[in-house]
Amino acid sequence: MMGRLINLSLLVLAISMITPNNPFKTAGAFSIIGYLVTVTIIPRVGNSFIKIGLKGRDMSKSGNPPEIPETMGVVSAITYLFLMFGMIPFVFFKYLVSYSNLANDAYQTNNYLEQYESIDDTKLFPHNKLSQYLSAIICLQGTILLGLFDDLFDIRWRHKFFLPAVASLPLLIVYYVDFSVTSIVIPSFVTSHIPFGLGDVLLSILNEVVRLGNHAATYVTGLSFNTLSTDFLVPKDDPKLLDLGIFYYIYMSAISIFCPNSINILAGINGLEVGQSVVLSIIFLLNDFCYLFTLDSNSAAYDSHLFSMIFLVPFLGVSLGLLRFNWFPSKVFVGDTYCYFSGMVFAQVGILGHFSKTLLIFFLPQIINFIYSVPQLFHIVPCPRHRLPKYNAKDNLMYPSYGEISALSGKKLASATFLLKTFSFFKFIDLKKDPQGNITEFSNMTIINLNLVWFGPLREDTLCMLILSQQLVLGVTMILVRHTIGPWLFGYDNLTFRIK
Amino acid sequence: MMGRLINLSLLVLAISMITPNNPFKTAGAFSIIGYLVTVTIIPRVGNSFIKIGLKGRDMSKSGNPPEIPETMGVVSAITYLFLMFGMIPFVFFKYLVSYSNLANDAYQTNNYLEQYESIDDTKLFPHNKLSQYLSAIICLQGTILLGLFDDLFDIRWRHKFFLPAVASLPLLIVYYVDFSVTSIVIPSFVTSHIPFGLGDVLLSILNEVVRLGNHAATYVTGLSFNTLSTDFLVPKDDPKLLDLGIFYYIYMSAISIFCPNSINILAGINGLEVGQSVVLSIIFLLNDFCYLFTLDSNSAAYDSHLFSMIFLVPFLGVSLGLLRFNWFPSKVFVGDTYCYFSGMVFAQVGILGHFSKTLLIFFLPQIINFIYSVPQLFHIVPCPRHRLPKYNAKDNLMYPSYGEISALSGKKLASATFLLKTFSFFKFIDLKKDPQGNITEFSNMTIINLNLVWFGPLREDTLCMLILSQQLVLGVTMILVRHTIGPWLFGYDNLTFRIK
Repeated sequence: MMGRLINLSLLVLAISMITPNNPFKTAGAFSIIGYLVTVTIIPRVGNSFIKIGLKGRDMSKSGNPPEIPETMGVVSAITYLFLMFGMIPFVFFKYLVSYSNLANDAYQTNNYLEQYESIDDTKLFPHNKLSQYLSAIICLQGTILLGLFDDLFDIRWRHKFFLPAVASLPLLIVYYVDFSVTSIVIPSFVTSHIPFGLGDVLLSILNEVVRLGNHAATYVTGLSFNTLSTDFLVPKDDPKLLDLGIFYYIYMSAISIFCPNSINILAGINGLEVGQSVVLSIIFLLNDFCYLFTLDSNSAAYDSHLFSMIFLVPFLGVSLGLLRFNWFPSKVFVGDTYCYFSGMVFAQVGILGHFSKTLLIFFLPQIINFIYSVPQLFHIVPCPRHRLPKYNAKDNLMYPSYGEISALSGKKLASATFLLKTFSFFKFIDLKKDPQGNITEFSNMTIINLNLVWFGPLREDTLCMLILSQQLVLGVTMILVRHTIGPWLFGYDNLTFRIK
Repeated sequence: MMGRLINLSLLVLAISMITPNNPFKTAGAFSIIGYLVTVTIIPRVGNSFIKIGLKGRDMSKSGNPPEIPETMGVVSAITYLFLMFGMIPFVFFKYLVSYSNLANDAYQTNNYLEQYESIDDTKLFPHNKLSQYLSAIICLQGTILLGLFDDLFDIRWRHKFFLPAVASLPLLIVYYVDFSVTSIVIPSFVTSHIPFGLGDVLLSILNEVVRLGNHAATYVTGLSFNTLSTDFLVPKDDPKLLDLGIFYYIYMSAISIFCPNSINILAGINGLEVGQSVVLSIIFLLNDFCYLFTLDSNSAAYDSHLFSMIFLVPFLGVSLGLLRFNWFPSKVFVGDTYCYFSGMVFAQVGILGHFSKTLLIFFLPQIINFIYSVPQLFHIVPCPRHRLPKYNAKDNLMYPSYGEISALSGKKLASATFLLKTFSFFKFIDLKKDPQGNITEFSNMTIINLNLVWFGPLREDTLCMLILSQQLVLGVTMILVRHTIGPWLFGYDNLTFRIK
């Protein structure tokens, strides 16, 4: 009863906050609505999901855990899509309208004029971003669709790894026809601080490789792949620019493969998939606000980060709604759909907001987890089917899980032993040995297990909270690094850079 | 082997046809690719669909028909989405580029300039349509997603009826921010041929209703709903215009509910869902070509029908691919997903192409089927769970199926009997009577059954072909009517109307 009253008043608050041409208030309002819709729908549809086989048992619980619905992240994801549809008329101003030629109806005209005249104060969202906004929605919708196929059909790992790249195609294509800035800024130390002019040599080799790649792509498709006009972002004659052309698209595609998969890999304990998404969006938003609160509203970077803010604030809402049910002890599982969807939100915000390099430093824990996993993923040391931490029903705590090396012999054993010993020396792994001192087992190489090796055993929610705190602290540190060391490396910071 | 060679050469032909900035050739090429992809994928994924429960038995076959995959239309639909993504860089020209400010690379610049200079000849697709194009893709993607939910979760009829309206939201929203023409042309006979000036009275009442509705909508949302500038389509001071405002959005929403559902209702025999979609797209394309081959390329109607053509030609390709497997005897079922998807393609082409009234006359067989079904759908006469025609294993023919009225009594029986007798008088129904002359059974009210009453019994494919022929003949007639009686009623025809 009390809960309902709070929800209702939140809803009323949200609706009263929706104001045409005020992206901040509107995004906040839609975030609240997203939260409310998610927490309302999830408990109601769980059984339908179980009925068609989207279900699973939580093996890290004592007794005989009941079957709970799987793939429930799709509720958040679809709610999010509708929020993004609904926001369009409020964040974009009608633009085909000529100011001198209005409706016959005085009421409508006055309403329109009032909004038109208030634009300068409220910092309008640029209408020319509409195509990008729509392409982002298409990309997310495609991601959800493919994620759903993955959850339904159990697609093989080596295929599903590339699904996000397929879903991101529309994003890249609209980027091509509508934006097509493919230049990147070369850090100034490359040209000035590398001795013997080697930096320049390196750059000219790179330039030639890029040129050949672009010509090949143009020959095949008939389309031109260079940045045809770069003065949009940085002065064209600035020597520190490298125009990557087709390679920039390959790079963006790689980003959109990386983000969804990296969230999908750092998973397996209650609340971690959604939790890390929530923390990531908080970090991204903090970075956005660095720009939005200091920059002039007609700079390019302002628009980019306004774009990012508009996409992330409602995302935070629907994710928090999902987290309420996915937090320890989980009542629902989120499914691959959510991991892909969430990763893609970050990827596209980074791509369309033109801060895909900054994006990567915010994903540092995920990158570390991936690099740390490489020896197992590429089978340098054995990789068991599941690398989740081990639950002990007696003390209700999580312990690191172990892989065995008994199957190895010869050269493979030698290289594995060498690697494990090196890792062990730096305390990056826990080893179990037989009485002869030979390694028999090693803790699986995920940062979840590593945290248990260092700080464990821990209860599932403490473990999750620990990893999320690490992500938050690293993220905030990276924001500081980005705006202190970054400018020094690159010779300028777009936080202070103004469009001409 | 022979088949593979033909496919391969078709593919080579298609790829060679793809040319930047030539929508006709490109659409044709993508249509061929769509056909090839569909016929390649469908036989390969059928088993996966059967495995997760998307399967059914064809009850109109003799013996013990095997289980065949259901919802295979989703293959066509998703292939179509990728075709539409892929077409973007070829039908839209890069526009952020300033002609004077090109890349440093002479090869890229020349390639671009060459295309730029050839634009006038090849009739360019306008870049400002990009948002609409993207909103159409979003709308279709949403339709597929909801259709898939329908096929998976078996949503109740009264809920699923409105799913397409939900999917069409992004279309309407982008229409609002980007286009927002909500005026319709009043037929000139209303103002000039209705006696006593009653036409004018009617119009002013209508005007007042619309005004009040618009004000209410503006009050609630804060958004303006009138056409703020109408000189885009027809001169603003033309007295024959009525600005529907918010009601135009309701009307468009109704269209997008009607088209998918009407295709979903006229269904149930092998090949009919896909077949009617193929015939409809041929009719729509014939109408488009009426404009494209006679109009000047800078008229608004030209752009609209170019838009329609770009969407329909690839649709024809993926549908023909599906039809190959769905035609009698079916190897796959198409599922609700396909019906929704296909109906939505037509709805959005009509809405964004601004010919939603013309659209309705092309859907005449579907409208007739719906109106004819009304007595059963609204339970004026009893409606059995399935109204499919009845298969007779002995002669391998289809017979009309019958509903019973034995459950009725009193007033209900009297009104049903009256209705059935009236229908029977016009031969619109077949009745079975007991020895006393009382009606016991009546043929179910679908045009499928009606065709069997008139021309039956028929084999399933003959029946399907008969209905498709009727659709084609009616459609072609309607194109003629549209361009002869239409102009006479409305006082002008946009086939001869030029933008100022």
